[in-house]
Amino acid sequence: MQTRLETRLTEALPDAKLAPQRLHDAMRYAVLGGGKRVRALLVYAAGEVCEAPLERLDSVTAAVELIHAYSLVHDDLPCMDDDVLRRGKPTCHVQFDEATALLVGDSLQSLAFELLARNEVANSAQRQVDMIATLALAVGSRGMAGGQAIDLASVDKALTLPELEFMHIHKTGALIRAAVQMGALAGTPLSEDVTKGLNQFAKWIGLAFQVIDDVLDKTGNTATLGKTAGKDAEDNKPTYVSIMGLARARDYARELQQQAEAGLSTLGTRGGHLGAIGRYIIEREY
Amino acid sequence: MQTRLETRLTEALPDAKLAPQRLHDAMRYAVLGGGKRVRALLVYAAGEVCEAPLERLDSVTAAVELIHAYSLVHDDLPCMDDDVLRRGKPTCHVQFDEATALLVGDSLQSLAFELLARNEVANSAQRQVDMIATLALAVGSRGMAGGQAIDLASVDKALTLPELEFMHIHKTGALIRAAVQMGALAGTPLSEDVTKGLNQFAKWIGLAFQVIDDVLDKTGNTATLGKTAGKDAEDNKPTYVSIMGLARARDYARELQQQAEAGLSTLGTRGGHLGAIGRYIIEREY
Repeated sequence: MQTRLETRLTEALPDAKLAPQRLHDAMRYAVLGGGKRVRALLVYAAGEVCEAPLERLDSVTAAVELIHAYSLVHDDLPCMDDDVLRRGKPTCHVQFDEATALLVGDSLQSLAFELLARNEVANSAQRQVDMIATLALAVGSRGMAGGQAIDLASVDKALTLPELEFMHIHKTGALIRAAVQMGALAGTPLSEDVTKGLNQFAKWIGLAFQVIDDVLDKTGNTATLGKTAGKDAEDNKPTYVSIMGLARARDYARELQQQAEAGLSTLGTRGGHLGAIGRYIIEREY
Repeated sequence: MQTRLETRLTEALPDAKLAPQRLHDAMRYAVLGGGKRVRALLVYAAGEVCEAPLERLDSVTAAVELIHAYSLVHDDLPCMDDDVLRRGKPTCHVQFDEATALLVGDSLQSLAFELLARNEVANSAQRQVDMIATLALAVGSRGMAGGQAIDLASVDKALTLPELEFMHIHKTGALIRAAVQMGALAGTPLSEDVTKGLNQFAKWIGLAFQVIDDVLDKTGNTATLGKTAGKDAEDNKPTYVSIMGLARARDYARELQQQAEAGLSTLGTRGGHLGAIGRYIIEREY
């Protein structure tokens, strides 16, 4: 799957020889050859549930990963988290410059919507429109970008657990949920029960993902993570670890994963890959 | 039309009381109550050609103006043009902060696609998808954002007229062209001839718009323009005025407007409003 996705992304991104070259070069730098591609795996696995053709899922997956890459490039900018290392490489604004990184993020967002609108990604144009609406809602101010705004406002503040949860349901959760929903829109329409189960899975696994991210920020090292370890504590940002401690955070992630897995019960064997991704998410070491 | 649009934008933007409040407040600040709304007028006038219902055009127009506002907010950032005044008010990052302004632009872009995907904007879902594709292509790295990248790279450089033209066809032209194309997609399908004529109009009027912008940057004053006059010269940016002189630039704008108007010949009386906007574009004083 990783190779399929990499091929699709390489093809979807404008050629680095095309003007403006520096921007296209930077877009490719920010997107290709890195990342765990967890969101991508979720699209493919949800697409399997509705028997969506792989070629369709390649485009949907690429769109989701372009959005994710855009969010990382903008989050790393000096006026945001000001980070210099990402996926084991200098961040985009360090490798290129701030203005280019800004435009890289902007252009990746547009390209994601372009991919969804210019490829056959669903059984009908109406479902294609629904998929675009799902992504747009998930990444905007009431989703991912809104979560980032809350994150910035939380520096140096003591958040309660519900406040932290609210932030992460937006910042990381919204795109993870959208990935599952979009995969599920790419094939045969699913029953209401199955759709509900998938949403339950996506909601809790998104949160579990973030809890483990906080654990790894504490326990991991920069080399393994490919990004600056301990950055949250250094930035005085509230995390699950700072609020509940390391051991309790680990248990909490496990509980969330179990809640997520319960959502898959209506799917029978079709939910196998999603379940495996859920387990991977909480067992991963980077 | 301006009032209709303002009402639609007010309604489309998330309520400032909704979390994250500061972000939503800043989005409203960046979008509402300002601007010439030239792109909006073009959507309405092109929509008239294909007899599109006004309610549809309100959504299309709002999407185009959200994109335009996003581009201004990002262009004004310190790492880009570093401007402090826009539409007679402090720019978004001055009024709020850089991180918020970054997220405002990001969120406005998502919201534009959300509007197009969640409202009835065309006769069929397929034409709705086409409209989304048109916008996405126009604003990405091979359109507006790409033009901005070329603009940044041109500081302190002597561009030839074709190079300057290439930049503006992307930076300003792409969205203006998309506005006309999107309006034309909102109603009854048009003949190939009429579509071709509309594209000719849109292409040249977009360029004429930019030539006059350069003229006004030279001859206007900050109070009338609502943005810092003389900024291009100060930034050592090539403009039509710096390359061809003031008088020749004015003549050139007039020639472009006439080329644009020729595109409307296939439309008969249905092109009346577009023609009037074309004349306004080159006669405007801010």
